[in-house]
Amino acid sequence: MDEATLRTARAGHLGSGDIGTEVRVAGWVATRRDHGGVLFVDLREASGVVQVVINPEEQPDLVDLSHALRDEFCISVLGSVRERPEGTVNPDLATGEIEISATEITVLSPAAPLPFQIDDRSDVDEVRRLEYRYLDLRRPRMAANLLARSRAVGAMRSTLADEGFLEIETPTLVKSTPEGARDFLVPSRLRQGSFYALPQSPQLFKQLLMIGGVERYYQIARCYRDEDFRSDRQVEFTQLDIEGAFWGQDQVFDALEPVIGAVAKALRDLDLGTPFPRMTYADAMARYGTDKPDIRFGMELVDLSEVFAATGFKAFSGVLQGDGLVAGINGGGLGLSRAGLDGLVDRAQALGAKGLVWMVVEDGGTLRSPVAKFLSEAEQAGITERLSAEVGDTLLIVADSVALTRAVLGALRNELGQPEGHDELRFLWVTDFPVFELVGEGRLVSAHHPFTAPVDVVEMEERPETAVSRAYDLVLNGTELGSGSERIHDPETQARVFKVLGISDEEAESRFGWFMRGLQYGTPPHAGFAVGIDRFIAILQNEPNIREVIPFPKTQTGFDPLTRSPGPVDDPQLEELGIDLRPGVRAALEDEETPE
Amino acid sequence: MDEATLRTARAGHLGSGDIGTEVRVAGWVATRRDHGGVLFVDLREASGVVQVVINPEEQPDLVDLSHALRDEFCISVLGSVRERPEGTVNPDLATGEIEISATEITVLSPAAPLPFQIDDRSDVDEVRRLEYRYLDLRRPRMAANLLARSRAVGAMRSTLADEGFLEIETPTLVKSTPEGARDFLVPSRLRQGSFYALPQSPQLFKQLLMIGGVERYYQIARCYRDEDFRSDRQVEFTQLDIEGAFWGQDQVFDALEPVIGAVAKALRDLDLGTPFPRMTYADAMARYGTDKPDIRFGMELVDLSEVFAATGFKAFSGVLQGDGLVAGINGGGLGLSRAGLDGLVDRAQALGAKGLVWMVVEDGGTLRSPVAKFLSEAEQAGITERLSAEVGDTLLIVADSVALTRAVLGALRNELGQPEGHDELRFLWVTDFPVFELVGEGRLVSAHHPFTAPVDVVEMEERPETAVSRAYDLVLNGTELGSGSERIHDPETQARVFKVLGISDEEAESRFGWFMRGLQYGTPPHAGFAVGIDRFIAILQNEPNIREVIPFPKTQTGFDPLTRSPGPVDDPQLEELGIDLRPGVRAALEDEETPE
Repeated sequence: MDEATLRTARAGHLGSGDIGTEVRVAGWVATRRDHGGVLFVDLREASGVVQVVINPEEQPDLVDLSHALRDEFCISVLGSVRERPEGTVNPDLATGEIEISATEITVLSPAAPLPFQIDDRSDVDEVRRLEYRYLDLRRPRMAANLLARSRAVGAMRSTLADEGFLEIETPTLVKSTPEGARDFLVPSRLRQGSFYALPQSPQLFKQLLMIGGVERYYQIARCYRDEDFRSDRQVEFTQLDIEGAFWGQDQVFDALEPVIGAVAKALRDLDLGTPFPRMTYADAMARYGTDKPDIRFGMELVDLSEVFAATGFKAFSGVLQGDGLVAGINGGGLGLSRAGLDGLVDRAQALGAKGLVWMVVEDGGTLRSPVAKFLSEAEQAGITERLSAEVGDTLLIVADSVALTRAVLGALRNELGQPEGHDELRFLWVTDFPVFELVGEGRLVSAHHPFTAPVDVVEMEERPETAVSRAYDLVLNGTELGSGSERIHDPETQARVFKVLGISDEEAESRFGWFMRGLQYGTPPHAGFAVGIDRFIAILQNEPNIREVIPFPKTQTGFDPLTRSPGPVDDPQLEELGIDLRPGVRAALEDEETPE
Repeated sequence: MDEATLRTARAGHLGSGDIGTEVRVAGWVATRRDHGGVLFVDLREASGVVQVVINPEEQPDLVDLSHALRDEFCISVLGSVRERPEGTVNPDLATGEIEISATEITVLSPAAPLPFQIDDRSDVDEVRRLEYRYLDLRRPRMAANLLARSRAVGAMRSTLADEGFLEIETPTLVKSTPEGARDFLVPSRLRQGSFYALPQSPQLFKQLLMIGGVERYYQIARCYRDEDFRSDRQVEFTQLDIEGAFWGQDQVFDALEPVIGAVAKALRDLDLGTPFPRMTYADAMARYGTDKPDIRFGMELVDLSEVFAATGFKAFSGVLQGDGLVAGINGGGLGLSRAGLDGLVDRAQALGAKGLVWMVVEDGGTLRSPVAKFLSEAEQAGITERLSAEVGDTLLIVADSVALTRAVLGALRNELGQPEGHDELRFLWVTDFPVFELVGEGRLVSAHHPFTAPVDVVEMEERPETAVSRAYDLVLNGTELGSGSERIHDPETQARVFKVLGISDEEAESRFGWFMRGLQYGTPPHAGFAVGIDRFIAILQNEPNIREVIPFPKTQTGFDPLTRSPGPVDDPQLEELGIDLRPGVRAALEDEETPE
């Protein structure tokens, strides 16, 4: 086989300059149209589409074959390039001025009847698309996404290489940390009873590279997360991972902004303004009710506690006396019916609020609201002023614990104001994250991860709930693209963080002893970041989910409909690994097995 | 933390142009020398090394601190750049004309006593190096290897991107194929009793990309192989994987040669001549006794069957009557003693030969050999002529089955002639590999893999032992760098190959049904290749094994001495996965557990 015998030209590159030449092209039958015996075939390949004309009067030899052609046959066509007849030029097509008059056609591979049309307009069930992903990838939209992704990572790499970063591969068969649940495990055959884990990130290895003197590292790293069902996540995903020695936050931002900019340039031809705006976590929570604000629109949260400091309205005064928060947003001219407004109340309650107060600004500035009669004129004026309310605006007020008020208003704000899609790109650094967050019954966990440097170690020990760390996130249009931090670079601070987290010395040794030992040998200060590539590309491509930018994704439960994976394995394989299915699992599998 | 407070200049970039300026540098204490109270510190960082001078008379404040400094402390130094005193210039060091006179030193991180010296001259046990890999990576040789690897993959990527290849990520949690032993398995938690596998290569996914219309794909892909102990392999390894639609062998070679050339240019500043020479598998076996000839030296195998066609020497005539082969090599002027020659005989027998005939060409051209008396003059003249023997040469002759004669002479040839190291690079394409090889008791297995196109399907079915495929290897200095082939692109041929391999329809369906379905939808002819990156870089860096060019390698049994991985996991984790250790394994583990 030789490409020259299959094609001498690329279909999508032909134009009026080629008129009169004989060419051979190869590709797939995208469409066929029979116009009074003359067959028009759109031949599609990676470079584009060209029209092939098969005229039975000119080429009687091709009649039988042209009748046999079906959609998605892979063919090679010899013919002459000619101008399209007047009135048939297609300005939407790069090759729309010309066509190929076929003199010879070879079917390289026929195609069985298709499970769905290869057509961006067709609306196919996603599982079926994944089952035949190789056909789905022929759709122009998916082909564009693959191309965009390749260009994006290329732009990342060349930007980083120009800045002297080394691309370094870290292992993916790593240590399993017994207490760190939700690693994927890989049983060892040569050491039965022992397991590797697949990495959730290269975090500790990249820190070891800093200890190893690398100074500027990056990697496009495959990572793994065995999570329960959660929307728009994948069991394996890809991140741009970077780390720098002698770095602080500013060096991370300075390194990443050009990388992000290069990707935006490559995919959107956009020149992003830099530096990106920065906002502290505390500000983000107060003004947007979330640590990932979408700053493409306003509708900021406004603290109304002062307005209601002396209110007689029990629902508000009670909350304020209990250290709660009364806050509101100005939803603008929503023009909702009473039923629509009640729907917002239902939504707020579904989000956990006890209730939601709505107010509509009437002509003359009076507030129409079920609670208006409980509020003084001064309070009503205060609301109007603080929320910059104008006639026709709908105001939404929540009174609850600080966290809940912010969370509910932040969610309502997004639901009411967030633009569709991602035509505009607004990046934001959110900085000064807390060291810890409280989960369950007051248990402290790391807000980022336990290798994040606290701003003040004593504060971290004495007031862990409010202590601030040197961690930061990058947010794009209300989506967290990634996070990073300055890292702890001395073993003592690291040990003190483990202690506040309630990790015993024994546990710290068994999970991280190997890493803590490394910290003892002249560890440079260092900092880094990881950007979720799947999500970043999905946003840039205006795709609703990351599966659209992953060539062979799995479903949200980690299943691959194409290969039907994961699947059963033979008992001898398990025996070699020294493992067995638990009896209940084995029984359930055997029950499932039905003859096909 | 801010880099500007830690360093304003890069140590290795300082030179005489900086004399008189004040700089701040940061890095590691590589060496300390006390010359009469004046301390000389070599400060090392990624950019290079600079000498720092701490003079107690000039800087009394620094005395205590300078005494506390130890090797591999991470420090930041403020000082002025000055010319070195006459006679102390170090021409071996890029910064050897200058030194920094320190005025302020900050210890960023102290270092505990080192397990070994960070020094290319020190000869440290490899397991210990791996246990403290982060220190080992500080050695200039290892730092150079990391840099070289990063540059090499960068050169690969940019060459391929310029040629319009898309970099596409294929999954690494893939289908386990029950009969395909030695996949690493990953138990699924959400589907207990089901398993993913880690891919041995992206083979089928890259073929699906061709079906998907990608046309030019590449990936630097992590692959996994659960092998028994075998020298210089890793459980996870990296390959450059490429594939092209409408391609044959020539397109693969045309695509890869510039990639290989770009790497040689980047790491060796070499301009490789292209095209690389090509040799068929049959020629390689006949001339070099191996499918991966080292063509840096001659000493080719010479078929002596004609010389001995009518010989009276039973050892040879018996072999020839039994369709065997008598062949020899001219080892040149080895100058071996009788004991040395006998050693070669022992070696040949260890390699499986029944014996080895040696002959030394004496002055006057007579052959000294234990068997000379059994050979006619014509035969002796024939040997001399065919082997171009000259006075002093040692000739080695083996008479055995064709395969064994070639294997033994090929091995002896390498042992006698192969140059040390890899100063010279000689690439070679070996083409036209057989479709199958025979293993065990005459069972056929794919020589490459079962997706390789046979040259002739009927020949493949009728004479499978000798049938030729469209497969090829790339060989560098006698090492196989990688292999590739034209692929089967129609389901019927694929089914016929499976049939010859003795794979039943049911087994083909269960293992590869998902892939065979894909072949039905207009699959373009396609071909591709995979280059083992670890080995390629190791050779270019003149390293004796691939672990030297892998940042965090495992031992040959798949163990990581740094993290002590693989390791045990908790029972609740196994329970979540629906698996358990087999009783014998669990008992053995419990026996092992000793209180520390």
